[in-house]
Amino acid sequence: MTTTQLTLVQIDNYGPWTVNTGPRREADLQTPQARLFADLAQFVGNRNGDAFFTRFDNMVAVTNGLDRDDHARLQESIANRYPVSVSLPVAADSSPVAALGDATDAPQKAGSAQDSDRRAVLCGQTLPGDTRNDDDIGIAHFDIVDATNQYTDELNSIDMLARVQRTSLELLEYMRETTDAVSFFIGGDNFVAVCPPLDRESYTDVVEHVGGATGVELQVGVGHGSTARDAGAAAKHALEERRENDSRIERTPSGWSEADR
Amino acid sequence: MTTTQLTLVQIDNYGPWTVNTGPRREADLQTPQARLFADLAQFVGNRNGDAFFTRFDNMVAVTNGLDRDDHARLQESIANRYPVSVSLPVAADSSPVAALGDATDAPQKAGSAQDSDRRAVLCGQTLPGDTRNDDDIGIAHFDIVDATNQYTDELNSIDMLARVQRTSLELLEYMRETTDAVSFFIGGDNFVAVCPPLDRESYTDVVEHVGGATGVELQVGVGHGSTARDAGAAAKHALEERRENDSRIERTPSGWSEADR
Amino acid sequence: MTTTQLTLVQIDNYGPWTVNTGPRREADLQTPQARLFADLAQFVGNRNGDAFFTRFDNMVAVTNGLDRDDHARLQESIANRYPVSVSLPVAADSSPVAALGDATDAPQKAGSAQDSDRRAVLCGQTLPGDTRNDDDIGIAHFDIVDATNQYTDELNSIDMLARVQRTSLELLEYMRETTDAVSFFIGGDNFVAVCPPLDRESYTDVVEHVGGATGVELQVGVGHGSTARDAGAAAKHALEERRENDSRIERTPSGWSEADR
Amino acid sequence: MTTTQLTLVQIDNYGPWTVNTGPRREADLQTPQARLFADLAQFVGNRNGDAFFTRFDNMVAVTNGLDRDDHARLQESIANRYPVSVSLPVAADSSPVAALGDATDAPQKAGSAQDSDRRAVLCGQTLPGDTRNDDDIGIAHFDIVDATNQYTDELNSIDMLARVQRTSLELLEYMRETTDAVSFFIGGDNFVAVCPPLDRESYTDVVEHVGGATGVELQVGVGHGSTARDAGAAAKHALEERRENDSRIERTPSGWSEADR
Repeated sequence: MTTTQLTLVQIDNYGPWTVNTGPRREADLQTPQARLFADLAQFVGNRNGDAFFTRFDNMVAVTNGLDRDDHARLQESIANRYPVSVSLPVAADSSPVAALGDATDAPQKAGSAQDSDRRAVLCGQTLPGDTRNDDDIGIAHFDIVDATNQYTDELNSIDMLARVQRTSLELLEYMRETTDAVSFFIGGDNFVAVCPPLDRESYTDVVEHVGGATGVELQVGVGHGSTARDAGAAAKHALEERRENDSRIERTPSGWSEADR
Repeated sequence: MTTTQLTLVQIDNYGPWTVNTGPRREADLQTPQARLFADLAQFVGNRNGDAFFTRFDNMVAVTNGLDRDDHARLQESIANRYPVSVSLPVAADSSPVAALGDATDAPQKAGSAQDSDRRAVLCGQTLPGDTRNDDDIGIAHFDIVDATNQYTDELNSIDMLARVQRTSLELLEYMRETTDAVSFFIGGDNFVAVCPPLDRESYTDVVEHVGGATGVELQVGVGHGSTARDAGAAAKHALEERRENDSRIERTPSGWSEADR
Repeated sequence: MTTTQLTLVQIDNYGPWTVNTGPRREADLQTPQARLFADLAQFVGNRNGDAFFTRFDNMVAVTNGLDRDDHARLQESIANRYPVSVSLPVAADSSPVAALGDATDAPQKAGSAQDSDRRAVLCGQTLPGDTRNDDDIGIAHFDIVDATNQYTDELNSIDMLARVQRTSLELLEYMRETTDAVSFFIGGDNFVAVCPPLDRESYTDVVEHVGGATGVELQVGVGHGSTARDAGAAAKHALEERRENDSRIERTPSGWSEADR
Repeated sequence: MTTTQLTLVQIDNYGPWTVNTGPRREADLQTPQARLFADLAQFVGNRNGDAFFTRFDNMVAVTNGLDRDDHARLQESIANRYPVSVSLPVAADSSPVAALGDATDAPQKAGSAQDSDRRAVLCGQTLPGDTRNDDDIGIAHFDIVDATNQYTDELNSIDMLARVQRTSLELLEYMRETTDAVSFFIGGDNFVAVCPPLDRESYTDVVEHVGGATGVELQVGVGHGSTARDAGAAAKHALEERRENDSRIERTPSGWSEADR
């Protein structure tokens, strides 16, 4: 069984801020959004977690291994260095979808994301260190089979973007409905899903469904670990092995979950 | 008539690089991808252009006003500061879709995006300064009506993300097919389309189509200018006025195109 | 007794790299130098250490609390994200000067800083966790009395810079000779010394010496802790209290070392 | 004759801000200071100027070629992206020292650097484009002869730092007194002086004086141009030629000033 700890990173009152002195220059919004995400990726990544940009004003991080002090430190550091602050609700659950739902609920109860009084919320429970397990996190790393040859080198870039977005959306919705996983586009032709334990047939089904719905063929590597780092590295290694073995789904030994045996 | 100059910013041979010493830690890919985009946004934005992250390994910039030297400077600067280099094909056309198609074609002819010998391509023609006009660029800035109240404060974050992605995809595909515009998600609940001249009915049609297909209600401000900066600022001001006037489509005076009169 | 763990962060073969394709544009050297330091400051700071830019191609960090894995992670992350790599020799000693000397020696034995074969050295011993103490680190935070009124608001900026550099140099040399401390300019009118235990008279002597030699009056707060973060925060609080009490040297309760009682 | 346009980049009310919520964590000051400088270096450098970190809360830029709009854009961009704002007084003069003095004076008249009402000052005159000349800027790029072999590979890093600081200070003070140049440490063993026209004997004198006072032998390349970029590149090329020719002072053809013929 997995226990996924997810943190929602929500910029406080961001929409109103972007226009409170008249609409700010778009480049001056794009730049700090991207840099804040880059800082989040380093902070969380250097503690063996993983971060997803999602909508930039709302980002998601897998934070198994980060405690409340780590979250407080991140929140303080961003407030010290950016013109905006962030709220950091956190929740853990065997279902990644439920964990993200709980994390989203918490600040909603404290007020609206555009409530100027609701700033720098830090709420929810992180996992006690003594309850953590070697297979708390499942990561599935997907990419598009032969993306460069088939698409990047052939299509108008806007049509390649459409294909990637369609794949991302189909994957997100199908996994959310059928598996309790949350999945994210991470750039290029890559998608990462944070998963509960799933057997090989489930992944086959996902790949087939997305292929049928979009015409885009995915391949996937799956890994498990006590942190997003370990699970993600195992998933990427599995994907590399797959490339050599020409199978479509692969797990490293460390990635086998009970359900697969 | 618009003349949109678009530059495709393509990281050279990126996929192979990410695994050439074994799969690199995901946080160490996410961070420089985001920072490279942030640098691009500043470089182009400070010359009154606009940049879109799209897939991060392939980004798109509106570069009216940037000449070949500017492109060369950007390319040199990235090569000096990152472990990767970029190719920068550029093209201009009255149709944004055609401009991006031409920009995509050029490096494809020079070799694959994963060809290790095809590095730092700088090709295509920038617009001569004396051919530039006050309405070369059309920008439509869309956002979701009442997004925070309706969605961010109510939904599981993954379901809000799905709605945003569906909206982005529907907008991209519908505008690409019916109008020759290229549109991009820029974070939050915001989408920017780089457009040929379109009349009010066309925007009404886009908003209605997306609303019908996704259930998400969009509003839009439109602006025109000689640069993405001017057009984008006019579009954002129009969107702000709309919020006050409660219309769904608005243009600033500077934003009226011939077709609207 | 203090036990200071210091890490020298040395960019490998940096001089030759800056000219290996002809002299690189200076802005493209200044930018990644500063950003690499910023990343170092965040990485080390988020683990309760402290980093000093010193010469940018050689930086110094107080790394009590960081183990070999942390150093390896930092080294890997920089190599993944910058066009250069770093060597990270580390050493610990009761004397900060000796610790830095040992850290400097180690890579010197492995080859020249401009030896293209000597890359990414990771050497030296970090402190075992069970040997760490509450007063391993002493930090003295100096600033210039009434700097803004006396200097910044009055002098040509180049003359203020000369005063600050003279103060920095005098402080560095005098403390190095008389106390085994290493001191660094950290921006503005601020200087931080990493110190062995020193009594109040020693600090009085330092302040008087620097004042006599440069005409610049310093004030100082001193703190101790198991990490640079704790010691530095105590030092800064002491300095703030001093401003209110108008004394020139102040320690917080947590900052008293054995020698002072 | 040179006409050097210098901009003082002064963070507004920075000292009070660093402690207004209690002393902020030092890493969270070091990071944005360095990044703000990196952004300045890119902004100015991409317009063929040059930037020096000096004290980080006060930085200096050579801005020939940047007009008032460029300065306003920089100021707006920083205010949009950082928790602090900057004042940007600018002045031009045949004497770099006088230009920096004038730039420093201007905001001093508008109030103290720690006056909370004195924010985002933009004052002084930029050079009209039609008055600019090919030799407005003189740049001398100094480095230490055989620094790596003699010092970096031999000395305790703190003693190398002391030598570099002593050299920097001696160079700054001697050139300021005898030549009206302003000089800055730029990292490593490198120093850049922004100079009025000086003949070869003057540079010989500077190198000899610094060598006599510090025991550190400098070499120098000199370049002239209409921008800091051109002058600096010429100076760096001259320094590279010198390394091959083993002379201590060298100019590229483009670097000869009237005084040398």
